[in-house]
Amino acid sequence: MTVKIAVLPGDGIGKEIVDETLKVFDTLNRHFDLNAEWEEAAIGGAAYDEAGDPYPEATQKLVKQSDAVLLGAVGGPKWEPLDKPLRPEAGLLRIREDLGLFANYRPAKVHDQLLNASTLKPEVIQGVDILVVRELVSGIYFGQPRGIETLPNGEKRGYNTLAYKTSEIERIARKAFEAARLRSNRVCSIDKANVLESAEYWREVVTALHAAEYSDVELSHMYVDNAAMQLVRNPKQFDVIVTTNMFGDILSDEASMLTGSIGMLPSASIGEDFAMYEPIHGSAPDIAGQNMANPLATILSGAMMLRFSLGREDLAEKVEKAVENTLNAGIYTVDLAEGGASVSCSGMGDAVCKEL
Amino acid sequence: MTVKIAVLPGDGIGKEIVDETLKVFDTLNRHFDLNAEWEEAAIGGAAYDEAGDPYPEATQKLVKQSDAVLLGAVGGPKWEPLDKPLRPEAGLLRIREDLGLFANYRPAKVHDQLLNASTLKPEVIQGVDILVVRELVSGIYFGQPRGIETLPNGEKRGYNTLAYKTSEIERIARKAFEAARLRSNRVCSIDKANVLESAEYWREVVTALHAAEYSDVELSHMYVDNAAMQLVRNPKQFDVIVTTNMFGDILSDEASMLTGSIGMLPSASIGEDFAMYEPIHGSAPDIAGQNMANPLATILSGAMMLRFSLGREDLAEKVEKAVENTLNAGIYTVDLAEGGASVSCSGMGDAVCKEL
Ligand SMILES: CC(C)[C@H](C(=O)O)[C@@H](O)C(=O)O
Ligand SMILES: CC(C)[C@H](C(=O)O)[C@@H](O)C(=O)O
Repeated sequence: MTVKIAVLPGDGIGKEIVDETLKVFDTLNRHFDLNAEWEEAAIGGAAYDEAGDPYPEATQKLVKQSDAVLLGAVGGPKWEPLDKPLRPEAGLLRIREDLGLFANYRPAKVHDQLLNASTLKPEVIQGVDILVVRELVSGIYFGQPRGIETLPNGEKRGYNTLAYKTSEIERIARKAFEAARLRSNRVCSIDKANVLESAEYWREVVTALHAAEYSDVELSHMYVDNAAMQLVRNPKQFDVIVTTNMFGDILSDEASMLTGSIGMLPSASIGEDFAMYEPIHGSAPDIAGQNMANPLATILSGAMMLRFSLGREDLAEKVEKAVENTLNAGIYTVDLAEGGASVSCSGMGDAVCKEL
Repeated sequence: MTVKIAVLPGDGIGKEIVDETLKVFDTLNRHFDLNAEWEEAAIGGAAYDEAGDPYPEATQKLVKQSDAVLLGAVGGPKWEPLDKPLRPEAGLLRIREDLGLFANYRPAKVHDQLLNASTLKPEVIQGVDILVVRELVSGIYFGQPRGIETLPNGEKRGYNTLAYKTSEIERIARKAFEAARLRSNRVCSIDKANVLESAEYWREVVTALHAAEYSDVELSHMYVDNAAMQLVRNPKQFDVIVTTNMFGDILSDEASMLTGSIGMLPSASIGEDFAMYEPIHGSAPDIAGQNMANPLATILSGAMMLRFSLGREDLAEKVEKAVENTLNAGIYTVDLAEGGASVSCSGMGDAVCKEL
């Protein structure tokens, strides 16, 4: 049986890092009976340049006919002057909404080989293994009404709406509880229930769902300001974190930086019918086209795809093991090398394929 | 001329840390011609217990007749089951709004003596000196409409409104630019303009004000998720940060934890007519009443009061110097002592007074 992957390289280093991931898939095709096929389409700034739309119709069509989507990265200064609906980020928000990708999984795991790359002391981060489960298609990112209006007195006012309804909270909390059962069985739900009604309701629904269906999982609640501190103070206390779209955006980036290896961190965005995989880092326009980006976050996103969308846990583990072996062999891209010897982006892809 | 201070100890360790600060003011009265008088009133949980209201009328009256307010801390598990308007936090939000305290200054400064207390590597944080200027009486904390409603299909929905209008953005940005002029002359405005219209407008107003009146100050803009990362990656890059109420809540707590000495960090909340000073840490109910809390954040908040509300820069510097000398003499409360010898809360207050 063939599986179909929609490949959206996007902008900046997107093309390079995606190409190395396809090299890995190619190796799996040839040596491990993966029957993957892929087709490329444009998204983000590249799509705007090509089609005047950061999420063009051809791309919409392709992703809906595929078993999974692999995304590189979007954005860059070139497109910043554009109106918001034409900017690369708008393409990203639209594909998330269009495919209903409500659950964003962002693991922040410390690789022992890279312990010293963090700005945090090694003893604070050794063994850190956090999974942030971020709600991705509701909350203040998508709430209506929104806009910039002129007030009677001539001033202007920019406004947005933060809203969560029962079903939106339940479905993301469910994913967090289920993920926790496969890990250390602890969920910390992060909100600002002491100030915001939307968060008060978030906490109420998470608590009720826990009592009704997931009381075997340990549940705690934390305010977002405290969470931002606790991630720095003692990140090992966390297993699964579940939170809103906006808080998840902030806290997952903070968590990823703790590990010191943001070039290593994959993500998955999953809905009822579709799934998309991408590195958590951005498009890094400053190093684009120089064959020096770290493709491992994208390759590890490919491993998540094998696990969650293609039913190939066996190959997911193979890829993860190959990445680990590569690092153990002292093969680093420049972001990991701390001034030591380094390989190129394609050199890293080759090394992982060789390990496979 | 006598100056009048309204003293609101609040809950948990509030009373202890405020008492040590009053000891310092008493020393300044006796030896350095400060003519300060003070009167206490209740706020938070203590006020609820006493008067059934976390911000009672007597307190409202007192603070408006004073030259400055000194606050300890509010909150505790005891009051968590209460309805939101009766909870300690509601008292805090109401006094901020009632006094129009729109500018919240939260310095995160690393004390050389405490370099090792941080979870970050010393070379990453040595010399860090960030001032977060947080908007405090608008944004999603106060936006209308807000609530929890029942939808036609029987589901419920919790919602809040994030809004900023021109004058609200201008007045806080102004404070940030003015603070920067007295420091390293750099302001980083933090928003989420790539997603939120309110943030897009925030950025537009800050940029216009900068061009019109503060072009001598260096201005940059950063997305909030990136800021959460950059604070961990390289906190030294920041001088003054200006941001919204919610982002300021999160980022100032993150920044304070970087310094490793959250028991050391003061804050000031300032409006057109009133000003309030408080430590940034909470009420720490677990150690309340045990004479072991660190009073230095409150004492340093007192120094900020001397500087900004009482016109006594000379005494502010004296207090700050006395705190530094105390630490240099190896006198630590238990939170700073890393298992070594420590003094009590009142012992620390005495030590600072002796240095004075
Ligand atoms: C680019 C931006 C719209 C996006 C977000 O805020 O969701 C990004 O920061 C992310 O986290 O994937
Ligand atoms: C207690 C809470 C309402 C408050 C806030 O969110 O502003 C606190 O976290 C703070 O930062 O002063």
